[in-house]
Amino acid sequence: MTREPAGAAVLRPDLTDAVLDAVLQEFAEVGYGRLSMQRVATRAGVGKSALYRRWPGKEEMVADAMARLGVPEDPPPDTGSLRGDLRALGEDMRAWLTTPAVRPVTSDLLAELARSPGLAEVFRSALAGPRRRRARAVLDAAVRRGEVPDDEILLDLVVDVLGSAPYWRMTVLGEEVDDGYLDRLAGLLAQGLAV
Amino acid sequence: MTREPAGAAVLRPDLTDAVLDAVLQEFAEVGYGRLSMQRVATRAGVGKSALYRRWPGKEEMVADAMARLGVPEDPPPDTGSLRGDLRALGEDMRAWLTTPAVRPVTSDLLAELARSPGLAEVFRSALAGPRRRRARAVLDAAVRRGEVPDDEILLDLVVDVLGSAPYWRMTVLGEEVDDGYLDRLAGLLAQGLAV
Repeated sequence: MTREPAGAAVLRPDLTDAVLDAVLQEFAEVGYGRLSMQRVATRAGVGKSALYRRWPGKEEMVADAMARLGVPEDPPPDTGSLRGDLRALGEDMRAWLTTPAVRPVTSDLLAELARSPGLAEVFRSALAGPRRRRARAVLDAAVRRGEVPDDEILLDLVVDVLGSAPYWRMTVLGEEVDDGYLDRLAGLLAQGLAV
Repeated sequence: MTREPAGAAVLRPDLTDAVLDAVLQEFAEVGYGRLSMQRVATRAGVGKSALYRRWPGKEEMVADAMARLGVPEDPPPDTGSLRGDLRALGEDMRAWLTTPAVRPVTSDLLAELARSPGLAEVFRSALAGPRRRRARAVLDAAVRRGEVPDDEILLDLVVDVLGSAPYWRMTVLGEEVDDGYLDRLAGLLAQGLAV
């Protein structure tokens, strides 16, 4: 009698992908509060045991889905000017926020951070973290060129603004982030940062 | 036999206040999705009829509670410099975001805007609107003094940043907005805006 090998080898990656897609769809439809392992299993067409073999519970499963929402893979932009680099970062942010998988879940996800420390931890390390580090690399290069002051608080603030301003405009005000807006954002920050 | 007069006169304001307090407490505790007229009535110690005499339904009731979350009553700051005025606006925003009634509901409220057009309308007109106009008055005065360009998109962006940066830092990153942060925010925007 043969036994299936134990451990990661038995977890079919295509099934994991299907489940994580189902998590994102459920999240967008019903929000984090009403999302359940059962609903996700039903939507993905698998048994609940397939979920529990992968994650101990809902928080870990959702965290995993979040972490797949798009970590930037390109190196930080290097256009030849701080303004151009900031413009490129703003454009990346807009592209990410308008991704079909991302747009409907952003606000619910942010609302959930206050209630779910585990999810907040994953959001900050796996989702916001890589984006923030990429933006920060652009600013650190400008510090090395002597174009902006080496002021930790100020640089962190600029990283905040690059993410929060486009989010705010789209989600809170319900307006589009057009090229004119991104031009002003890059111009405002580049001039505001200059030594 | 006497009848109670119909209309607004029968609505005891102290009862209205108690119900609106209960709405904010429920909102903070369970979020918008699970908030119900029944739960609010129970918490406020009144019958559901007392609620329906005041509001046709949940959305209108919550909107009314939101609208009471604090409209700025002071005139726009006039400290003698754009930087000082922006600093004062940032400080107001921090004070508002950290109000005990406001802090626990902000993120759920923002998440709900995408699902409830009626609530979004009230949020934008009654809650964000007065704050945005107050910030905009500061910028328009600086335009008249010839200190900043008369650029609608840029001025709107700066109004966005004054609200979104402190919100982002507190709620999304879970960090405090200290005086150093507000100093940088005012400095970044004042220098970034200068003609």
